[in-house]
Amino acid sequence: MSETLMPIPGGSFFSVPGLSGAAVRTGVKPSGALDLAVVVADEPMAACALFTTNRAAAAPVLVSRERLNAEPVVRSFVVNSGNANALTGARGIENAEAMIKTLEQCAGGPGIVFSTGVIGQQLPVGQVLEGIPRAVEALAEDGGDLEQAILTTDTCKKTTAVRVALRSGQQVTIGGVAKGSGMIHPNMATMLAYIATDAVISAGELRAIAGRAVDRSFHEISVDGDTSTNDAVLCLARLPTDTEEELDSEDRKRVANAITYVARELAEQIVADGEGKTRVMEVRVEGAASGAEARRVATAVANSSLVKTALAGGDPNWGRIISAAGAAGVDVDPNSISLDLGEHRVFEAGLPTDYDSEAVGHSFSQERVVAVLGLGRGSASSRMLTTDLSQRYVQINSEYTT
Amino acid sequence: MSETLMPIPGGSFFSVPGLSGAAVRTGVKPSGALDLAVVVADEPMAACALFTTNRAAAAPVLVSRERLNAEPVVRSFVVNSGNANALTGARGIENAEAMIKTLEQCAGGPGIVFSTGVIGQQLPVGQVLEGIPRAVEALAEDGGDLEQAILTTDTCKKTTAVRVALRSGQQVTIGGVAKGSGMIHPNMATMLAYIATDAVISAGELRAIAGRAVDRSFHEISVDGDTSTNDAVLCLARLPTDTEEELDSEDRKRVANAITYVARELAEQIVADGEGKTRVMEVRVEGAASGAEARRVATAVANSSLVKTALAGGDPNWGRIISAAGAAGVDVDPNSISLDLGEHRVFEAGLPTDYDSEAVGHSFSQERVVAVLGLGRGSASSRMLTTDLSQRYVQINSEYTT
Repeated sequence: MSETLMPIPGGSFFSVPGLSGAAVRTGVKPSGALDLAVVVADEPMAACALFTTNRAAAAPVLVSRERLNAEPVVRSFVVNSGNANALTGARGIENAEAMIKTLEQCAGGPGIVFSTGVIGQQLPVGQVLEGIPRAVEALAEDGGDLEQAILTTDTCKKTTAVRVALRSGQQVTIGGVAKGSGMIHPNMATMLAYIATDAVISAGELRAIAGRAVDRSFHEISVDGDTSTNDAVLCLARLPTDTEEELDSEDRKRVANAITYVARELAEQIVADGEGKTRVMEVRVEGAASGAEARRVATAVANSSLVKTALAGGDPNWGRIISAAGAAGVDVDPNSISLDLGEHRVFEAGLPTDYDSEAVGHSFSQERVVAVLGLGRGSASSRMLTTDLSQRYVQINSEYTT
Repeated sequence: MSETLMPIPGGSFFSVPGLSGAAVRTGVKPSGALDLAVVVADEPMAACALFTTNRAAAAPVLVSRERLNAEPVVRSFVVNSGNANALTGARGIENAEAMIKTLEQCAGGPGIVFSTGVIGQQLPVGQVLEGIPRAVEALAEDGGDLEQAILTTDTCKKTTAVRVALRSGQQVTIGGVAKGSGMIHPNMATMLAYIATDAVISAGELRAIAGRAVDRSFHEISVDGDTSTNDAVLCLARLPTDTEEELDSEDRKRVANAITYVARELAEQIVADGEGKTRVMEVRVEGAASGAEARRVATAVANSSLVKTALAGGDPNWGRIISAAGAAGVDVDPNSISLDLGEHRVFEAGLPTDYDSEAVGHSFSQERVVAVLGLGRGSASSRMLTTDLSQRYVQINSEYTT
């Protein structure tokens, strides 16, 4: 971590000055848990969002994306959980727009909307719309229970914050909050993340910063290889004004690093809460001919059911890692591949090394297993964090809607 | 089924005249089960094999592929189970070649070799070589227990046979035997299949026939989306001679249909024995712009962990099917997609239909669930058979080597 970066113990998205939030119950979640949250900024902020690439993107994604494309500025947003408003046609679009309209009337705009939960069911929009003014009335600088209200199958809240010193000595804050534990996969699988800063950054610069941060965080995690209909990362920053200039390039770099740091922290928290997870594997691919090739191999290994079940068993069945790499559609040569599990080289020059089975078994039964795959084709690298595929994962996902 | 096609009740690979086989124990499988089998034909046969596309293909694949490329003729082959001789470098190649040499000395050649089992461990070659002459001595026209000896995590034998009447009234036989229950995926994941016929077909024609048969059978099944290091489909036919001419095109078509039928039967048996399977889903994609696009979508749905866990729960969470299709990398438009589960249309024109939940739930809890996805983009189609992802699957695959 850079020396200009100071984590805020117990910090959250709402550590950033100028933001408030609140959460309420609308009855959308059958359990009666919190299921609607709003965030309102004192003033309109520069905004940039990265949305799911799923062709069946949900109504809130379609509506919010269009609004941000028209004007990359946000003052308020609303998130409902328990129903994703996905695969809901024209009525879904109307409902998403109604949520924004109600929000803007109560809290000021421009507003956008996010949803997460079951897909393929119409939103009970009356309940949801009724909750929005209640949430706005309850707005608090600590955000109320927003971290809780945006969760679905998650087992814990995900939030973090850091401070950065600018060259002038002034400090700015970057705070983040996220949701996600299943359907986590590069390209924004069922995951919502919100990152804000009180640093002054134009929307154009923010887009470049957010793109790099997401590429090095949320695009490096995979729980089950599925890419959902709803997911999004939103970045907010203070807009430049006549009296407040945008950061210069050096300070912008510091803030960009801090945003990446926050994004990586949130991504780690999401993987740590992966559905049914008992163990995490960090797959590092090195020596690839290109970054795309490195990521392709890392993703193939991270998504292999056989690798993930071996991980669940704490079973160093490393041949499955090389087999998954061999099936990735990249022209790798097993004679040039090396594989390290933790400190131990287990495969090199086309065959297993004379490794210490007990030591390898021990390193594979840790809470975090590191596998480093050398392809011997170049100097590009990539990494993926993945969870094991446990019986509990299956249980969670066979019982979700019923 | 064509009227010229007559299934043989209780028929097997060895229903084909001129073949014999046997199986023995070599101690490679720690359980002491049968783990080595040989097949010997009365005379050399036309041969065509399709091998795994995994870049980390095992030694027996490399060696057998080279031999068949040099001369597409086989008189004998040996299969060992329990150790895949994969990721074993130059010594693995030597061991595979030694197996062929021993086989050819005892039983005549040309011979080839197949292996299946744990990857990344050197073959205990002494034991294996010692078993080959014992198996050759035990050769029997019913093949002994070959069907059993080639299995790994399978729970049952997979074999079938049919007769076909040629235009002359003469009948020929097509028999098949297969192995596979995990790592099943298009492009020959841990699966071995052998199909033979006493029909007279040149190696060139056999290659075309086998390619089409495999495309419509083993390439349409997926258990866990992994593609293994070892797998292969071998087709054998009687070679044309001076006195026996190759079949004419009409008879060849009949035999080709029968070979496809046998391949599909074996593929169905493999899926039915999918690791931890409690339910099978047939995913049919229709209205695609191309066959490749149809297969891409069908494969994405068939491999989605969320679809497969919903199937395990008998939970008609059909939004996961459309979400998986939307994430397949094909430019589908949800407003043009339709989805039928069994007899029931559940999604059309961008939103759920007013379907009968109880009836849909019932059709989704059958032993075989049929999902038909219409893309509304053209007239190409594809289908995939997949199994559910159950807690039992995870258990089997977390405990495999240990």
